[in-house]
Amino acid sequence: MDYFAHGGDLDGYARRFPGRVPLDFSASLNPFGIPAPVRAALHEAVETCARYPDPFCRGLGEALAAEWGVSPAQIFFGNGAAEVFDRLAAVLRPGNALLLAPGFSEYERALGQVGCDCRFHTLREAEQFAVTERLLTELTGEIEAVFLCSPNNPTGQVIEPSLLDRIAARCMEINAWLVMDECFGGFLADDRTRSMRRWLERYDRVVVVRAFTKLYALAGVRLGWCMTQQPALTEALRAAGQPWNVSYPAQQAGAAALECVDFVWETARFIAQERVFFAEELRRCGLWVCPGQANFILFRSENPRLAERLLPRGILLRDCSSFRGLGPGWYRAAVRRHEENLQLLENIWEVLHGENNYGAGHML
Amino acid sequence: MDYFAHGGDLDGYARRFPGRVPLDFSASLNPFGIPAPVRAALHEAVETCARYPDPFCRGLGEALAAEWGVSPAQIFFGNGAAEVFDRLAAVLRPGNALLLAPGFSEYERALGQVGCDCRFHTLREAEQFAVTERLLTELTGEIEAVFLCSPNNPTGQVIEPSLLDRIAARCMEINAWLVMDECFGGFLADDRTRSMRRWLERYDRVVVVRAFTKLYALAGVRLGWCMTQQPALTEALRAAGQPWNVSYPAQQAGAAALECVDFVWETARFIAQERVFFAEELRRCGLWVCPGQANFILFRSENPRLAERLLPRGILLRDCSSFRGLGPGWYRAAVRRHEENLQLLENIWEVLHGENNYGAGHML
Repeated sequence: MDYFAHGGDLDGYARRFPGRVPLDFSASLNPFGIPAPVRAALHEAVETCARYPDPFCRGLGEALAAEWGVSPAQIFFGNGAAEVFDRLAAVLRPGNALLLAPGFSEYERALGQVGCDCRFHTLREAEQFAVTERLLTELTGEIEAVFLCSPNNPTGQVIEPSLLDRIAARCMEINAWLVMDECFGGFLADDRTRSMRRWLERYDRVVVVRAFTKLYALAGVRLGWCMTQQPALTEALRAAGQPWNVSYPAQQAGAAALECVDFVWETARFIAQERVFFAEELRRCGLWVCPGQANFILFRSENPRLAERLLPRGILLRDCSSFRGLGPGWYRAAVRRHEENLQLLENIWEVLHGENNYGAGHML
Repeated sequence: MDYFAHGGDLDGYARRFPGRVPLDFSASLNPFGIPAPVRAALHEAVETCARYPDPFCRGLGEALAAEWGVSPAQIFFGNGAAEVFDRLAAVLRPGNALLLAPGFSEYERALGQVGCDCRFHTLREAEQFAVTERLLTELTGEIEAVFLCSPNNPTGQVIEPSLLDRIAARCMEINAWLVMDECFGGFLADDRTRSMRRWLERYDRVVVVRAFTKLYALAGVRLGWCMTQQPALTEALRAAGQPWNVSYPAQQAGAAALECVDFVWETARFIAQERVFFAEELRRCGLWVCPGQANFILFRSENPRLAERLLPRGILLRDCSSFRGLGPGWYRAAVRRHEENLQLLENIWEVLHGENNYGAGHML
């Protein structure tokens, strides 16, 4: 029962290596952790959580709606973005859907629940896994839903706004839903100009899914959401499951997180800079690195046991062999703090080259 | 969008009566609140929750399994018992189901999601809403699932073990699933002997649903679970939705709650005693009171606006007019602490009798 393909399985690690806490590169969370005001809000919530959460997430919803220039009635909150995908599948019930490969496997799992026929647009390594105009040719009349992710998990590639506009327009033409996963969008310095939010008014079958999980390191607390132009859709999403799906601590944490504007800005600035360094160094280790924009990096090694070899060294990497369109030798690493990334690089170097001399010249 | 039929809508209250915190009798939570060790575990969890929760709830599952004498593979955890009902509906997908009326409306909502035809066994006021042998006559061959609740929400009536045994046996004969909601079971002093747990090995289509929500006042944190004899069913429940449905704080709180044995015992003893007093006094106010065993009391008043009248007095009562089989004038009140219950009684007396002399003789 306990095989888990996703990253972040710290409990699984603890069972294999008792008493050890690994450096976790397998979950793509903010390396700065939960911002202090959010942590304070969580502690406060603990003192007052002997009550049901607000089933309508009113306080959080109003703050978030103001932030994104939409009405609270256009927003649905979930127990993490993962639940939002479950509910979208249950409500939209598309007969078929076009997904990216490689891409986040939870779309397929959620859609499979409602008998959806999932088709895959294969991203090409030769195109560095970028979404290109090729996608447009697959948007034929019978497609009922398209699930995209930008930056895409696990490639880190963003879809250019001009192309996104054409994809969305095409989806509307063929009457397909376009579900846009922007869970990693908050890590981009130009998030607001890239977000599909700007086209909500123009394209009424677009759903933008986002999360507090990654950006504010609230993975354990669970808080995701989506916005759409259609209040009837958010209403249907609410009715598609229990009313108390978002915990009281999560709502309080989310409201506090919205105040952490500098934190987000500093995160985006740090990630942009550190990712360049991290990617360069991974290349220097002899790895093929996908040129993404996210807070994680996809890379390929000749060694299909790299992740396994790093485990006893106290390092968790996301083995991407289970992703459609990838296979053994593919890995994803979160961009963590500089010293932590150096630790990963040193260990990768040692595993791959058997030598303890990573960065000897570099570190000067 | 903001009408909410269930109890515990403190945010709705705060919007109507700004700055006021009501005495909430509408949510049936432990009047002693979250036990101190559980609160401590929650604070500790806040310090370490910048990580994904364990998708298998391993630590909590092993502790709970030991507690109930089952294997961890027989247990599924949900984001509150409400999510367990959603997943049960999604996995069992019964074509029809027999439900109690009055009963918790979330079964019907969850089953409606999968197109289930819900039928209702009407409990009779003349029988004090008890489940009797009459139910057996409705367990005909075409019934695919039966949802029961004991103590039943909102009546507080328990189903006698001997009758429960016959119901379960009959369900197995007709190949129907029996979903037994024991979310309020923990408040009974004889919980363990009453629980359907003891028949799991005998009846393999029984699912017992329970929650930490009410007993440990963790409504805001969300933690429910179910056990069954069939690991294949729990496996299917896991696969029917996102893997990170139970938050990290909820798992930590649950594990700490299992240590609070005295707390549970003292709660059950207090509730049993206080409920007798509370029910007697409600009768003295001129109300018809249902003789239940739970931590809440169902009663009827000639005044269909009683709950509404109590609102400006800072008191929330559960208006039960929306329950099938009830109607205007029916109310449910949680058994809270003695002084709080007195406050409710005084206010009910004043609203109903227009006099400020409740308990004048009684309190001596």
